[in-house]
Amino acid sequence: MSGYTRILVAVDFSPAAEIVGRRAVEMARRHDAVLHLVHVVDYLMPLGFADDFTPSPAVMVDEEALLEQGRKSLHRYAEKLGCADVSQSVVLGAPKQEIVRLAREIPCDLIVIGSHGRHGLARLLGSTARAVLNDAPCDVLAVRIGEEGETDKIKRG
Amino acid sequence: MSGYTRILVAVDFSPAAEIVGRRAVEMARRHDAVLHLVHVVDYLMPLGFADDFTPSPAVMVDEEALLEQGRKSLHRYAEKLGCADVSQSVVLGAPKQEIVRLAREIPCDLIVIGSHGRHGLARLLGSTARAVLNDAPCDVLAVRIGEEGETDKIKRG
Repeated sequence: MSGYTRILVAVDFSPAAEIVGRRAVEMARRHDAVLHLVHVVDYLMPLGFADDFTPSPAVMVDEEALLEQGRKSLHRYAEKLGCADVSQSVVLGAPKQEIVRLAREIPCDLIVIGSHGRHGLARLLGSTARAVLNDAPCDVLAVRIGEEGETDKIKRG
Repeated sequence: MSGYTRILVAVDFSPAAEIVGRRAVEMARRHDAVLHLVHVVDYLMPLGFADDFTPSPAVMVDEEALLEQGRKSLHRYAEKLGCADVSQSVVLGAPKQEIVRLAREIPCDLIVIGSHGRHGLARLLGSTARAVLNDAPCDVLAVRIGEEGETDKIKRG
């Protein structure tokens, strides 16, 4: 069996995102794979406002500005990981759907994503990793993030 | 970041188990990691019979025979993958709990497990991968198994 060739890294800029990124870089190195960094700006226009006829100054969201901000953050993240030259995508939407969609589109044979436990705050926040696992078209590497503020793993990483 | 050092492979002898095993062997090779093959005999004494005072011939289950059968199957599986000399454990219990327990006990830094989609029969059967992801003490590599009887991926593998 050959190794992975195209690895999608789901980047959420959480305190533990660097651990996930370093794991993905390590996987890419060991598999001679190409990395694709993906950040999803978790933003959906509230349904009540999804109406072209009644724009309201209260909900004027500059989507392009959100995307540009995401692109800058992703670029800094990539620089920090020492892989500023790899493919980077920033999209607006629901993280789970967009990650799965991009994994099909690229297409990737591995998704690397941070996985919080199901206890405490992590459970309340839900887990994109579990959701992605349901629909992923490829293998998923869920990188375990500590339950207690991630500091343990960050120190180790 | 260093690579994985100890990889637990959850083996269920399903038609797709070989794909999962080959992926794990490949990961171990690329990370210079040690493999631990684990098979959980998915068997729990029904609660109504868990009574030492009224043994019934109808529920005389030879647990040691179940384990021995599992050990033989796991050994053949390991031989097929070309890794008959790696550590092999066969235990009785609920797969999710036992896999998580063994991952802590060994301890492993990666669990490799097959992951069915959430559609059709796979959804009905549930997914041990999703359950393991919730409680795993380490990273989890969920190897995607095809929805349609696994034949596509088996051919590719």
